[in-house]
Amino acid sequence: MMIHTAPEQNRAAKHDPAPVHRIRLQVLEGLDYIQKGFVYMLDVCLLGTSGMMPLPGRWLTALMTRFEGSSLLIDCGEGTQVAIREKGWSVNPIDTICFTHYHGDHISGLPGLLLSMGNSDRKEPVTLIGPKGLERVVNSLRIIAPGLPFSLNYIELTKPEESFVLSGYHVTAFRVQHNVTCYGYSLEIPRGGKFFVEKAKENNVPMMYWNRLQHGETVETEGRTYTPDMVIGEPRTGIKLTYCTDTRPVESIVTHAKHSDLLICEGMYGEKEDQAKAEEKKHMTFMEAAQVAKEAEAGELWLTHYSPSLLRPSVYMKAVKKVFPNAFPGKDGKSCTLLYPEEE
Amino acid sequence: MMIHTAPEQNRAAKHDPAPVHRIRLQVLEGLDYIQKGFVYMLDVCLLGTSGMMPLPGRWLTALMTRFEGSSLLIDCGEGTQVAIREKGWSVNPIDTICFTHYHGDHISGLPGLLLSMGNSDRKEPVTLIGPKGLERVVNSLRIIAPGLPFSLNYIELTKPEESFVLSGYHVTAFRVQHNVTCYGYSLEIPRGGKFFVEKAKENNVPMMYWNRLQHGETVETEGRTYTPDMVIGEPRTGIKLTYCTDTRPVESIVTHAKHSDLLICEGMYGEKEDQAKAEEKKHMTFMEAAQVAKEAEAGELWLTHYSPSLLRPSVYMKAVKKVFPNAFPGKDGKSCTLLYPEEE
Repeated sequence: MMIHTAPEQNRAAKHDPAPVHRIRLQVLEGLDYIQKGFVYMLDVCLLGTSGMMPLPGRWLTALMTRFEGSSLLIDCGEGTQVAIREKGWSVNPIDTICFTHYHGDHISGLPGLLLSMGNSDRKEPVTLIGPKGLERVVNSLRIIAPGLPFSLNYIELTKPEESFVLSGYHVTAFRVQHNVTCYGYSLEIPRGGKFFVEKAKENNVPMMYWNRLQHGETVETEGRTYTPDMVIGEPRTGIKLTYCTDTRPVESIVTHAKHSDLLICEGMYGEKEDQAKAEEKKHMTFMEAAQVAKEAEAGELWLTHYSPSLLRPSVYMKAVKKVFPNAFPGKDGKSCTLLYPEEE
Repeated sequence: MMIHTAPEQNRAAKHDPAPVHRIRLQVLEGLDYIQKGFVYMLDVCLLGTSGMMPLPGRWLTALMTRFEGSSLLIDCGEGTQVAIREKGWSVNPIDTICFTHYHGDHISGLPGLLLSMGNSDRKEPVTLIGPKGLERVVNSLRIIAPGLPFSLNYIELTKPEESFVLSGYHVTAFRVQHNVTCYGYSLEIPRGGKFFVEKAKENNVPMMYWNRLQHGETVETEGRTYTPDMVIGEPRTGIKLTYCTDTRPVESIVTHAKHSDLLICEGMYGEKEDQAKAEEKKHMTFMEAAQVAKEAEAGELWLTHYSPSLLRPSVYMKAVKKVFPNAFPGKDGKSCTLLYPEEE
């Protein structure tokens, strides 16, 4: 079991300056986590790392997460459904699919995925999120996937920033800068305050209401009002993951990736000499991604969306780590489990 | 170098009952064939063998051929472009793409392939052939591949049988029987008659016209007409390959696959018990495909388009070979080179 520990200062002062939590990116397989008694966790898998076209041994860039039985996918290029199967995960529980933009390498696998989800007997609706034009693009691609046993809900993004709560995921889409409208995504699993028996007693809250108050309800009874803050403390640091690809290193990424446990960010080019090309084609170099991770005070950075001509991402990492020590080259199927900080 | 020799009787009486040619399915790598002095040959690669959905290690069923610098593709499912790269072949010289039908697993890879062909700087037009609706389906999928540096020509099939000559390939599309309109394809590289000096001399053909006549031209000069038959013999047996998938074993397959050097045919199910399912879903069992190959007197049969639940095609081959001895389970990347019969 590999455990990365993110630098403590990265997580400090996310919601308040006081508690410094230790965040763990933990690779847990199978039922490990259940046996360990963890309840809230986010399984993360970088399904592919290729940009532009799928290559033998390198799937197109896409991210999949699992949280409490509900899976979420960001981008779905040609072959993404195979990458999911290769990982041993299932296409059936994908409740939400987010798209950064509609260049072929980020959405070409959608009709095949939807057909496979249909073949796996999925009946529940699937929510699709993406820039304006989503329904038009998806309907056009669905000429080869017309009859599905589940319905599709569309959320079209029009503002610079939009947030949603879906199946327990707090999703924030934020506009980035590419040669077409493109969004990055932050996924958060928030965590409420801790329950304090002493506090409940001090506030004279009858024990019969403790559970409801702990879960955020307000109780009004016999002329009295009991609120959650009478039994619980300040909200605690939750889990945060940010994903962005096909963009220049703009301020919105730093803002929205702030204090993420993990930032998965494009690095189309490894060579410093490709800086001009990165600017022209609205992509990033590894060094630029590292600078973003540093400014965002992220816990860890995984690079992805490599140019087909970039054969060995690892050779550039020494220089990259000088800018941001916790930077790693993404690999197809690279995964981790993000957990709540341990109880103090 | 592996050499299969097809039974002589299979090739007998293709064009005439007299000459019995020996056909060779030869696996030649790299420049072998140039060194060996072969000029006319058809490189064949079964890119994938999966039906319904792409699986790890099993691409969707598609066929690619190479002949005199021009490649031809039949079907293009999700991941076909990766299978081409895995084989080490190039997407750039694909001049013709034929579609059997428009179920997702046979066309979902088209937009990605077209984008990659564009990225490889292809400028020459590409001809697409498929059942009625081709242009509508392709235009719909091209919402994510709108700007290409080459044009597309469309040939929509409406008759039970249609033939074309494209880049040296003689292509015949023939209707088969699926739950949507579906076509099989025969590819032929015909071969003219042999040049006979004696015949040319007997017919008093001036030597200056021999070359033109040999290549099929008719020469009219000084009140005399010289025709090709004055210098060449009867047409000789050429190369023939037939591909059909997503169909019941109907008579049109036997007719069009007649005396093919190689028949690549779907076998969705290996178990005899799946006969009813094959009939219901308009597919074939291995045994049915073998029976088709037998009746068509094909040189060799490769099975493909396996159901995702069919894990080990080879276990069914013993029974299949009792019906048609030259039957083989197709594998991803399985390839051969079809040559003209040797000079006698």
